[in-house]
Amino acid sequence: MAENFKIQTTEDVAGLNLVKGFKVAGAACDIRNKNDMSRLDVALIVSDIPATGSGVFTTNDVKAAPVVLDIKKLEQSKTMRAIVANSGNANACTGARGMEDAENTCKIVADLIGSDPDQVLVCSTGRIGEFMPMQKLKNGISEAASKLSDSEQAAKEAALAIMTSDTRPKTVLSVVEVGGKKISVAGMAKGAGMIEPNMATMLAFIVSDAKISQPLLKKCLKTAADKTFNRITVDGDMSTNDTVLCLCNGSSQVEVSESDKDILEAFQAAITAVSRALARKIVGDGEKITKVVEVKVEGARDEAQAEKICRSIGNSLLVKSSWFGCDPNWGRLTDAAGYARTGISIDKIDLWYDGVEVLKKGQPVDANKPLWREIVAKKTFTITMNLNMGSASEAILAADLTEEYVNFNKGE
Amino acid sequence: MAENFKIQTTEDVAGLNLVKGFKVAGAACDIRNKNDMSRLDVALIVSDIPATGSGVFTTNDVKAAPVVLDIKKLEQSKTMRAIVANSGNANACTGARGMEDAENTCKIVADLIGSDPDQVLVCSTGRIGEFMPMQKLKNGISEAASKLSDSEQAAKEAALAIMTSDTRPKTVLSVVEVGGKKISVAGMAKGAGMIEPNMATMLAFIVSDAKISQPLLKKCLKTAADKTFNRITVDGDMSTNDTVLCLCNGSSQVEVSESDKDILEAFQAAITAVSRALARKIVGDGEKITKVVEVKVEGARDEAQAEKICRSIGNSLLVKSSWFGCDPNWGRLTDAAGYARTGISIDKIDLWYDGVEVLKKGQPVDANKPLWREIVAKKTFTITMNLNMGSASEAILAADLTEEYVNFNKGE
Repeated sequence: MAENFKIQTTEDVAGLNLVKGFKVAGAACDIRNKNDMSRLDVALIVSDIPATGSGVFTTNDVKAAPVVLDIKKLEQSKTMRAIVANSGNANACTGARGMEDAENTCKIVADLIGSDPDQVLVCSTGRIGEFMPMQKLKNGISEAASKLSDSEQAAKEAALAIMTSDTRPKTVLSVVEVGGKKISVAGMAKGAGMIEPNMATMLAFIVSDAKISQPLLKKCLKTAADKTFNRITVDGDMSTNDTVLCLCNGSSQVEVSESDKDILEAFQAAITAVSRALARKIVGDGEKITKVVEVKVEGARDEAQAEKICRSIGNSLLVKSSWFGCDPNWGRLTDAAGYARTGISIDKIDLWYDGVEVLKKGQPVDANKPLWREIVAKKTFTITMNLNMGSASEAILAADLTEEYVNFNKGE
Repeated sequence: MAENFKIQTTEDVAGLNLVKGFKVAGAACDIRNKNDMSRLDVALIVSDIPATGSGVFTTNDVKAAPVVLDIKKLEQSKTMRAIVANSGNANACTGARGMEDAENTCKIVADLIGSDPDQVLVCSTGRIGEFMPMQKLKNGISEAASKLSDSEQAAKEAALAIMTSDTRPKTVLSVVEVGGKKISVAGMAKGAGMIEPNMATMLAFIVSDAKISQPLLKKCLKTAADKTFNRITVDGDMSTNDTVLCLCNGSSQVEVSESDKDILEAFQAAITAVSRALARKIVGDGEKITKVVEVKVEGARDEAQAEKICRSIGNSLLVKSSWFGCDPNWGRLTDAAGYARTGISIDKIDLWYDGVEVLKKGQPVDANKPLWREIVAKKTFTITMNLNMGSASEAILAADLTEEYVNFNKGE
């Protein structure tokens, strides 16, 4: 398929400030109650004009108050003006008071930027089961609002303010040109990490100057998330707060609609590129990991089978431990593929580490053994398993399991 | 329900020799190819007379040759005379030759004890993807056959011969008396451990002097296994070789049938007691673990929901890491319960560590916090989560996740 657009994706740029009509800020207000005003913990993203909003959320039964609130707001399908996010407290398992706190957080922002509270989305990440220190948060939001800017510094501070155990901020910008028109999509994220160290969470915020309806944005965001944020695993644990939010304010005047396939395709490519880059950064900055491994399953009956086997392999403790140890242990891979219980036959399986054959119809290609070792010693490599049952394929990005992960997560 | 039987269960007894009409042996033949003839690696269990046999096997798509062969034999519903088992080589992912080797192993035993090869069951545990050293195995089986005995020494050697990374042999005897009649059930097992270090496997062999039909034995064994061997988790990985085999030779002359509920109930109690004790030993000797935690879910809609949540909690890396660290991290428990995605409501959940309340309708009982810490510092404790949705319950035994587990399993 020929593409009628040009796309340029840049990682580790300043951030959301690079999209017209958005202002951002980061502030510090000691949400962690550590008398530490040097650590940024409140981020604010504001669109100058009302924007189309959409989100993808954790499917955990136990959802934090901000998640429940955002889902409700986005169902009402109004335009949005802002996203407020804090690190240090997840506002999860906090009952009716947690929901009130989330609502009040939106009101605080609305008052400051002159919008309706329903036009403000809220995200939290951090400790579970503790009430939000609302006075502190209010101070932080006020400071952030006073600093709102499209400067590089402001964008950097916002990206820092959502970090918990992340070792680095995660930002990306994708610009597409199609038929002389240009759309920008920028994103920032925080990764799967423990919060002091109570909960793994990923948050991602994506903004664009595209003009798009809510139903179409919803579709584009879901398509992007399904193949990126939903195809990564660090430890197989899914949080109460996982959220991806996207705001499109139309300031480019470029309309994305079903009626212009080229523009739609270009926008989809940009939002997917931003999501993919952020997702890869999240795995690559997973807690105490040393490797990022792409697990590809090909020749499957259908995508569901391929995905199930990818996840079974990517979440196996034994597989992940052997990656850490640079051990080309194909037995653990076939074992994990088997206990996905999708109906595979070992005698049909071909397997490769990067381009090197490991199994041919289930039998090891022992001559390649020295090469296997070289590949699994690398920081990133790809495992490709062909089931030889059909033509469907899927892939996920997975991390290894290290002694340091256990040490880091074993207690407060 | 009043029980009409007396049951006595003794752990760490010599083993299978204590059941009438069975002889056992262990021998060494260097299956690991390490020039080590001091390590026992072949076990033989022989019934003097034809016995009813049944088995429970891994549901992994990738089944080792012995598993495929035993399933086929037991489907034919003949009487059995013997079980032969080896450690050091799993005979898994070995294709047509592996199947031939498994068949030949049975023939070797049959020739030596004077039975039909179809009356011999075979199990293997160890390295995956390598062919069995058949000449060595034959030597080992010959030696074992020449040493068959009902002595304590023989039983000890058999229990040692199936061990891989186990740190201790696992044996148990249960004797039930019902209406003046006595039935003995004895078992030995090897636990979930890596083999040099390629594959986790559990094997359990149970023998009894009860007289029972194959269909009824199958039912009793499945009932016992479902609540014991199928309710444990060390690392969530399921092997290609997991097998539980049971032989009943009728030498007690006590008939177990549907027509005498007291005897049936007594036999079921004994086989379940043996299975439970062995299952607990398997978790307790899990690789490099430090704790065994019982996870109970009560007040569930149905047993399937309760089981799903038990497994989600028991297999969560974050939960297991916090157990290792003696951290009473209830947030990780509710999070894992939520991502089982069975439709729970956090506002209904009550939670206890042993008898101490942690959450009441989803809200932490902070006054008990010092007590939580005491409990999770223990080597064994129970987590009870009441969903307050219905009346079903389930429980599993789970282990913690340690840095040493990762170190042990990271490579050869």
